[in-house]
Order: sequence, then C-alpha cells, then structure tokens
Amino acid sequence: MMDEGRGSEIDELEALIQPGREDDLRTFLLLLHPADVADLIREVEPDTWAPILKHLQPEHAAVLLSELEPNEQEDFLKQINQKALGGILDEMQTDDLADLLQELPEETATEVFKQIPSDDQEEVRELMAYDPESAGGIMQTELVSVLETVSIREAVEAVRKAHEDVDKIITVFVVDDKGRYVGNLEFQHLVFSPPEARVSDEMEPKVTEVTTDLDQEEVARIFDRYSLVEVGVVDRAGILRGRITADDVHEVLIEEAEEDMMVVAGAPQAEPEKVYSGSVLSVAGMRMPWLLSTFCGGMLASLILQRSASVFAEVVVLLTFVPVITGMSGNVGSQSAMIMIRGLATGHVAQGDVVRNVMRDLSIGLIIAAVCGTLVTSLVSLWHGNPMIGLCVGVSLAASMTTASVLGSAEPPILERFGIDPAIAAGPLITTINDVTGVIIYSFVARMFLSGMS
Amino acid sequence: MMDEGRGSEIDELEALIQPGREDDLRTFLLLLHPADVADLIREVEPDTWAPILKHLQPEHAAVLLSELEPNEQEDFLKQINQKALGGILDEMQTDDLADLLQELPEETATEVFKQIPSDDQEEVRELMAYDPESAGGIMQTELVSVLETVSIREAVEAVRKAHEDVDKIITVFVVDDKGRYVGNLEFQHLVFSPPEARVSDEMEPKVTEVTTDLDQEEVARIFDRYSLVEVGVVDRAGILRGRITADDVHEVLIEEAEEDMMVVAGAPQAEPEKVYSGSVLSVAGMRMPWLLSTFCGGMLASLILQRSASVFAEVVVLLTFVPVITGMSGNVGSQSAMIMIRGLATGHVAQGDVVRNVMRDLSIGLIIAAVCGTLVTSLVSLWHGNPMIGLCVGVSLAASMTTASVLGSAEPPILERFGIDPAIAAGPLITTINDVTGVIIYSFVARMFLSGMS
Repeated sequence: MMDEGRGSEIDELEALIQPGREDDLRTFLLLLHPADVADLIREVEPDTWAPILKHLQPEHAAVLLSELEPNEQEDFLKQINQKALGGILDEMQTDDLADLLQELPEETATEVFKQIPSDDQEEVRELMAYDPESAGGIMQTELVSVLETVSIREAVEAVRKAHEDVDKIITVFVVDDKGRYVGNLEFQHLVFSPPEARVSDEMEPKVTEVTTDLDQEEVARIFDRYSLVEVGVVDRAGILRGRITADDVHEVLIEEAEEDMMVVAGAPQAEPEKVYSGSVLSVAGMRMPWLLSTFCGGMLASLILQRSASVFAEVVVLLTFVPVITGMSGNVGSQSAMIMIRGLATGHVAQGDVVRNVMRDLSIGLIIAAVCGTLVTSLVSLWHGNPMIGLCVGVSLAASMTTASVLGSAEPPILERFGIDPAIAAGPLITTINDVTGVIIYSFVARMFLSGMS
Repeated sequence: MMDEGRGSEIDELEALIQPGREDDLRTFLLLLHPADVADLIREVEPDTWAPILKHLQPEHAAVLLSELEPNEQEDFLKQINQKALGGILDEMQTDDLADLLQELPEETATEVFKQIPSDDQEEVRELMAYDPESAGGIMQTELVSVLETVSIREAVEAVRKAHEDVDKIITVFVVDDKGRYVGNLEFQHLVFSPPEARVSDEMEPKVTEVTTDLDQEEVARIFDRYSLVEVGVVDRAGILRGRITADDVHEVLIEEAEEDMMVVAGAPQAEPEKVYSGSVLSVAGMRMPWLLSTFCGGMLASLILQRSASVFAEVVVLLTFVPVITGMSGNVGSQSAMIMIRGLATGHVAQGDVVRNVMRDLSIGLIIAAVCGTLVTSLVSLWHGNPMIGLCVGVSLAASMTTASVLGSAEPPILERFGIDPAIAAGPLITTINDVTGVIIYSFVARMFLSGMS
C-alpha cells in the first residue's frame, strides 16, 4: 500500500521533526491513522523516532507499537521514556501485550512487564501461557459480559462502564451464574428492548463458541463456516475467557497462507518475519534443509542412472531425455498434490472420500500421461528417425507421470493422518521422490526396450 | 469439520425424511445452524432434499442456498416449488443473490431473477454489473445509513426500521446531503448520546473507505491494515453504495490463497470450484497448459545436451548428474521466487527496494551454492576417484544454483510490473527456465573442463 502522496508525507514528517515545530508535528500526527504512522515511521531512521513518539497520543502509540515488527518494537522501546511507556501499555489490549512480550528478548520483556498496569499483569501472564497458535493465544480478554439474570437497563449500564476499555464492541456476551457463556445481546437488543426486561428473555442463544485450546486454523474455519465477525472463547468448563474478532482471524489467515506458501516453496523453517530481516547467513541456514533432501534425491537418481550405465552407454541419447522425464513428473505430481491439499483444507475432499478422489486423480493423470506420452513418442521418433527410441522415452514418460500423479494425490492425506502438514507434499519432497521414481522407471523401460532391440 | 456426532445426525435425518414424521423433522432442522444443515444435506441424495427444504424456515433456507456449491444450488432449485422460492429469495442478501445468479446457467438464472422481489431486482442487477473480484462485486447493499443533520433519536429510529432487513448491524453509516459517506455511529453512540444531539456532533469521522472498483485483494489488505470489521463502499463521487463486512473478506482471503496455491502448483487455469466437481477430461484440460510449457523446456534441455553430445559421449557419467543440477536449481529458484512473492504481497519488500532485495538474495544464493557445490565436488571426486569430474559437476551446480536464485527473486517484481500475477514465478515456469539454464551452464562448463583435460 504505497500511495502517491507517501513520498511528500515523509518529507513533511522529516521537516517537522526539527526542534521548534512541535505543535505542527502534533497536529500532523493527530490527523493520521496509527497504521499510516507505522508506515511513515519505518521510512525515517529509528534514532529520530523520539520526537515523533513523544507527540503521539498514547492510544495511537499503543496501536503503533502493536503493529511494528519485532525488531522495530525494540527500537520503539529504546526511544521512549519509562513514564510515557506506562501510559502506552495502559492503552494496549491484553492480547497485544502478550504478543509483544513474547516477541521481545527476555530481559527487555521483564522490564516492560513491570511497566504494565498491575491489574492487567495477571491477565497478560495467563494469556502468555496459551499456545500462541491457539484460540487462547489470539483472543483478547477485553469484552463486555453481563449475567443472564440482570435487566436490559443494567446491561446498557455495563456497556457504558466498559466502553472506555473495550475497543470495537460488537456484541454483549451473556453468561450464567457460573460464568458459562450462554448467549448474546446485539446492538438492537440494547436499543429496542424494554429496559426492565430480563437479559435472558431478550438475548439470542449463542451460535457457537470456541475453546481456548482450539488451533487458530480451526478458529478461522469456524468464522468462515458461520460467517462470524466475533466469537466467544471458553475454557473446558464452558466459562467465558475472552473473545476473538474478525480482524484477529484475518491475521491468522494471512499468516497461515504465508506458512503454506513457504512450505510449498521448500523453506518451511523460514519464519516469514526473519526471512526479510535476518542475517544473510541465517536465511541461508533456514533454506538449506529441504535443499539437502533434493540433493540426496538427485544423487540417488544419478546413482541409478550409473547402475544402468551399460544400457545407456549403448544409446547415449536416451540420457539426454532425463530432464523431460523428471521435469514433467515433478510438475504433474505437484499439481495433484496441491489439488488434494486444498481439497482437504477447504472440505472439497472429505476425509472419508480420499480413496475415491485419488482414483479420480489417477484417471486424470492417465489422460494427461497418455497425451504427453504420445506427443513425445511422435516428436522423438521423427527427430531421431528411430521409433524404438521415441517409444522408449514416451512409455517411460507416461509411466512416470502416472506414478507421480498418484503419489502426489495420495501423499497429502497420508501425511495428514500422521499429523504432518500435508502442504509439504506439494513442495520439494514430492518433486524429489518423483525424480527418483521417474529415473527408476526410465532405466527399467530402457533396459526392456534395448534387450528387445538387440 | 467432521465432528463425532455427524454420522448419527445423518442417520437421524434420513429417518426423519420418511412420511409421517414431518413435525419431528421440523424440530430437528430448527435446532441446527444453516451451515450445519448444508453439511448434512450434502450427505443425502439430492432427490430426497424436497421434504427437508419444505420444512426449513425461509431465512435458514436462504443461508443454505448461499452456502451451497454451484451444482448443489441447481439441485436445490429443482427440489423447491416456485412459491417457496420467492419467500427464500426475499430473505437473501442482495450480494448473495447476485452471486447466485452469476453461478447459475443463464436459463435458470433468468427464471430465478423473475422470482426476486421487485424492489430488490434493480439492486441485484446493479451488483451484477460490477467485476465479481472488485469491492462492488463483494459488497452488500443492505446497510443502515442516516443523514448527518438528523438527531440521534432519528438515527435510533432508522436502526429500528432497518434491523429486520439488515443482518449484523455493526455501525450506522453517516452521509451528507449529497449521499457522500462522512462518518460512523457506533453501538455506544446510539445508546449513550443525548437523543436530541445532532449525528454530526456525535459521530466518529470515517477511518477509511473503499471504492467500488477496488480489487478485492486490496480490500482485504485495507481490512488488515486498519484492523477493520466493516468498511463502507463508495463510488467515484464518494456516494455510499454498500458495505463489506469481515466475513466477506475472509472468503476473499481463502479464495486468493487458493488461487495463489493453484498458480504455484502449475494449474492456474484450474478454478477451485471445478477441479473437484468438473469432468475428468475437463480437469485434465485445465492442468495441461503449464505441463506443456515444462514439456517444451524439457525438450529444449534435451536438445542442448544432444548438441554437446561429443563432450558427454567422452564422459557419459557426466550426463547422469543432470538430475542433481536441474533438481537443485529448480528448488533454490522456487524458494527465492516465493520469498520475493510473499515479500511483495505483505509489504516486507517495498517496490522501491526490489534491487536491494535481489542483491540480498544473490548473497544468500551464493552461500547456498558454495556449500552445495563444495559438497558435490567432494562426494563425486571420492566416488569416481576423479577430482576433475567432481569439480566439473560442483562448479556447474554452484553456477546454475546462483543463476536460478537470482532469476527466482528477479522474476516476481518484473512480472508484477507487467501486470502479471507474480505467483506464476514460483510455479513450473521458473523451474523450467532453471532446468534449461542449468543444462546450458553444465554443457558449457563440461566442455571447458574436458578441453582442459585433453
């Protein structure tokens, strides 16, 4: 999101940082959304941040601090005095505080924790105990809840009291006398219900809820399933512990898509945050492991070709078609794998329906393999004037593409059953397996054909 | 999302479809969320849907119809009588109606359109004129808006009037006398502001807005940037035309992630909906185009190897290392491409910063290439007892991996500049280019080494 005016805004900001222009700087910052301040501040050197942070309103600074990348958060903290920090932390939501503390180096985190208002400290500590990728890890504890036995008037009063502390009030959560989540009061209930009516008579029963230990990907799926903008989070006893709003789920979806892409690209160890800011050497280290698996696969393929040297030495030209065989098998296998991965993730392919879908993919693979096999047989036969060579390459290609396609579609459900991320199957793993399988098939077919020729 | 009780729920539903159990069926359906009904109904044969649809409440049937896949929507429409259909369409939101009509075969769509309540027809027609992947294409026209000059009391009255027709009221949109979007009234404003106060004095100025022609991916980015749960959509004149809620954006994020994955898997023509339900032959057709590009690349690689036949015939073993070279180059290239693609998409890599990031990737690529090159040189030298062969393979591998890495990171920004989806770069295209480049480098290096040896 770089809009046209960004360059001039940066110039303006840099001019306003100069001493004597504090009032203009304050006005300038007041008119910007904290997300835009975050963008601008990234463009100036961190050691000039101090005057900007000093003139930001604490609630804007709180949003800014939540939005920055971990290394930028450290720069932020270095540029701000302890007293101002207390005010900013007071404005932050407990879930953002927990995230901040988890990202910071331990020593800094301990220092920051001491500055958190004491009534929030306990909640932040509790939030930090949840797995960061669970519902508990992404929920916020700021919410409005009322007992089902109170009146609508009291519920309105509860909203009035809470609305300073709670951002984005979408619904009022209703709980029973044990604190268990039972229903919701919407916007219109508070406005139109008779003030003396009991909350339990006016509320909507809850559509759904999530438990604190539910994986964040499942939370996203439930939001999608029920078209939610907010959901209540309960513990195992059903007690309301927090809420998750749609914007938290956006972050999850973006993060998960990013992780899947990295897995497919063969760099699952590469944490998105660090790939762009880490040292060159550390990034090389993150990218290495999968490359080594490809390396082993490639070496294995070479070894197999060498074991068949007697065959290939007779007709060296056969060896030159290895890139066609490995390239095509790898490609068709990734397609099949990805289609199965997405099918499982979106529910297009039900777990009970895996075998039927693999068989379906086999039929598709056979058609594609037949077309490509025929094509390569004709081309190579014409090219070399030897239909046996053409047929040898064509049959190998068709056989290895069909195998690759079946392997590609069967792998993701198998990986998932063993609790491994099925996205791995679309990455270098399947390509490498397909390279080796393709080469084995090719050696085998070549041997058969040549023994037939001689 | 298959929970434990699903199997028994299906049995129960099948028992309740039998004649004479209508009341039990009605009660059973009343207790389920429409999203759960959608799941259950998929498990029974479409020709037994009629009694289920008959006993669903129209508002539940409306949600169900919106949630079904295109081919299931046709089954739904076949099983329902015209009168009931009118009631269901009346309960549907205009954006869901527009989506439905766009998915249906033209003839059915015309029939359905006639059943839409006449006051909605015009709006649906307007919505259908927008690009389905733009803000106009995903927005709904149901919203609550008030003039800035009215009182809070009148705003409350407007909400009261609208709340039958508008699902999920999150905010009241405030417009000026020209209909231009100017601000918002939140939950708390309606409850706590003095009833006689002017809306313009109480409202929050709008944080942001999107225009009807904005791409849906940009809309998602704006939701993420400002942590929104809802946004107003305006035309070029700033007139409020509709709203987009966070759940619509979830669908966009899921859809876009799916599309990106399909592009990376080398099946960008494969529309997610049709891959799982289309005929085997049509899916094979969707998957073919990219495979053919790999095919051409592979054949080109073969041709290059054959042109160097004189070199390779001398040392046939060199040809057996082609899978290592192509496999590793493809892999490291995809990694670089994906890291750049995600960096551009998330803003980790700014457009002005592309060159620095390509250079950074070059350094990383050089480190990885040096490690792999050294490894393969040592292994092959030991294995074949000939350091010249080892060095020839190692130097070729290092050179082709470095090239692959640079090509991988440079391609996405170049594609983006030409308005092409940069995700293509992580797919078979880059792998194929890398295969060919790797083979060219290998032939060249082999020739140099062998002329040195002789």
